[in-house]
Amino acid sequence: MTNHARLYKYFSQNDLPTPCLVVDTEIVAENYNNFKRAMPETAIFYAIKANPAPEILRLLVRLGSSFDAASLTEVKMALEAGASPHKISCGNTIKKESDIKGAFELGIKTFAVDCFAEVEKIARSAPGSTVFCRILTDNKGADWPLSRKFGCDAKMALAVLNHARKLGLIPNGISFHVGSQQTNLTAWDHAIEQSANLFKECEACGIELKSVNLGGGFPTEYVKNIPTTKDYGTAIFKSLRHHFGNRVPETMIEPGRAMVGNAGIIKSEIVLISQKSESEPTRWVYLDIGKFGGLAETMDEAIRYPFKTPHDDDEKTPCIIAGPTCDSMDILYEKTPYPLPVSLTIGDELFIENTGAYTTTYASNGFNGFEPLQQRVI
Amino acid sequence: MTNHARLYKYFSQNDLPTPCLVVDTEIVAENYNNFKRAMPETAIFYAIKANPAPEILRLLVRLGSSFDAASLTEVKMALEAGASPHKISCGNTIKKESDIKGAFELGIKTFAVDCFAEVEKIARSAPGSTVFCRILTDNKGADWPLSRKFGCDAKMALAVLNHARKLGLIPNGISFHVGSQQTNLTAWDHAIEQSANLFKECEACGIELKSVNLGGGFPTEYVKNIPTTKDYGTAIFKSLRHHFGNRVPETMIEPGRAMVGNAGIIKSEIVLISQKSESEPTRWVYLDIGKFGGLAETMDEAIRYPFKTPHDDDEKTPCIIAGPTCDSMDILYEKTPYPLPVSLTIGDELFIENTGAYTTTYASNGFNGFEPLQQRVI
Repeated sequence: MTNHARLYKYFSQNDLPTPCLVVDTEIVAENYNNFKRAMPETAIFYAIKANPAPEILRLLVRLGSSFDAASLTEVKMALEAGASPHKISCGNTIKKESDIKGAFELGIKTFAVDCFAEVEKIARSAPGSTVFCRILTDNKGADWPLSRKFGCDAKMALAVLNHARKLGLIPNGISFHVGSQQTNLTAWDHAIEQSANLFKECEACGIELKSVNLGGGFPTEYVKNIPTTKDYGTAIFKSLRHHFGNRVPETMIEPGRAMVGNAGIIKSEIVLISQKSESEPTRWVYLDIGKFGGLAETMDEAIRYPFKTPHDDDEKTPCIIAGPTCDSMDILYEKTPYPLPVSLTIGDELFIENTGAYTTTYASNGFNGFEPLQQRVI
Repeated sequence: MTNHARLYKYFSQNDLPTPCLVVDTEIVAENYNNFKRAMPETAIFYAIKANPAPEILRLLVRLGSSFDAASLTEVKMALEAGASPHKISCGNTIKKESDIKGAFELGIKTFAVDCFAEVEKIARSAPGSTVFCRILTDNKGADWPLSRKFGCDAKMALAVLNHARKLGLIPNGISFHVGSQQTNLTAWDHAIEQSANLFKECEACGIELKSVNLGGGFPTEYVKNIPTTKDYGTAIFKSLRHHFGNRVPETMIEPGRAMVGNAGIIKSEIVLISQKSESEPTRWVYLDIGKFGGLAETMDEAIRYPFKTPHDDDEKTPCIIAGPTCDSMDILYEKTPYPLPVSLTIGDELFIENTGAYTTTYASNGFNGFEPLQQRVI
């Protein structure tokens, strides 16, 4: 369990307007150091999209982190925070050629691809760069599973890397992603096996791959227990040794959620508590934040956040939790109602824990007139 | 079919960075006038949340429209556009008491409720105001159906309106919403019947209700044909006469999508076209706008937008369409692939028609570093 004492002390000493996210950089640093200890040989590329707050990026630069940028804007954010260009990778396989050119002009030379056309764009606009080919993998065990949107099959990956070499690029490695909030320790194994096979096939074609990008997927703790970072490191290196033998490649990881998720708490307010009829006693509890204000990952009730209220020792009853907008989709938990204290009343504070990742950036641009989620980093 | 000639002329004469939404006020005015003609006795409250562009609000003020505001910010937007406070209704049943007070201080005196607690907040912070009680109704036939989030059952509505009267408020009427993009002309009938029954029950308690808020739900044309505004007016008034006899009440409607949807076109660019393997020929087409950039209503492929490309006369093949972010959920059409020209290439323009509603406001606040959707109103 993360120690949130510093965050709650800040909340008690500052009367913040709600909703507001506060992020504790000491927890972010602890998460970074846990990864460093658990996977000492692995380069850490923080997935900026999880939370691009400048204070977080600057902290990670100081700690020696590298960065995974989803767009040219994120490249610029990392540079502004002080990151060296060689520590920034463009991991999104879908890039406008003008953005590839923009990143290259800023010194970025590492790009992900998953098809021939993207290789050609990079060869034209970022000549001589290093490329990773992303492969499709399955996402069993992930609470926020990925689709087939990114990656190609292994056979095509070989052809794509060959094409890259022909066009003067440096085919450097394989990347994949096992699905976000992945709680199955063996999830990486199959993709690592595929990678090892591709290393051999590439070698047979005269391409010497060097690196495996193990992607993200590392979880943060919500209401269910999760394995430790050390457990992940152990499982992954066991798998690497199993499939690569004594030729274990360079590795990199792209944690986002696991770096900042548990470092943030959103303070919200109970706007309304009501019932739909006298014969139906279920309480509907409406917060001042919902799906469009930053809690988009409650979609299909995928991510279940821990709530804290001032009355948590009192008797609880299952409630349906919804957001404040006029949108009928803006319901957080209904299929599996959420137990909340019977004594909870309108105007009470409600803290939503472990919301440091994928909240500020998912918030809508003022839907229903509600401001995007505000954030403070301490 | 809407005449988009003025919009396409604008696109051809202006080299806009993409993605960008352009909205034609002449089409908005035509939509407003169609409602006015089809339902001459009905007050039109534009649902600001559909598109709060100041130019649209100012146009509708000039045409005589009233406004449905989902929040205090939207109240202020309507006032800034020149609307009189008595022409603004707070239709969201979930409001912070401080926002009710804020709206009341700006002269707003019409509020929706669906429970006792909300009545009490309004009685304290907006004393003497007019209230509508929202009832639950079913949403059969809606492409974007509503949940049970808003409204209470009819029995509770009677008690809520009674409570409002006791606390010095004016119980004015019943409101409901039949689901967004509602293409079933008879969808309003059951709710109107419930309203008529409630009018009688209220009368028996000494409460004289005056008005029925028929809500929104009126569709805009995407790829399927829809009934005309006149068809809706005819069906609704037939139902009102049937259930209210010769005592047809005052009525109001809250169109959002039907007022601005067909008035807007998004210009986007093809970022990438790829395949996942050589054995799987389906083309994946990646646009520079997706679920997080404004096309949130493609969730579960609910809304299917018409696309126009420079090669629409060429042979077409079913494609999977996705957005540009690193998010694997950012896929627009996959279950039902979308036919696009085989000759379509990276860098081509693609126009997404009838995107004037629920796009700019649903756009995320910079997810993956992508700017919120830009808009021009002509």
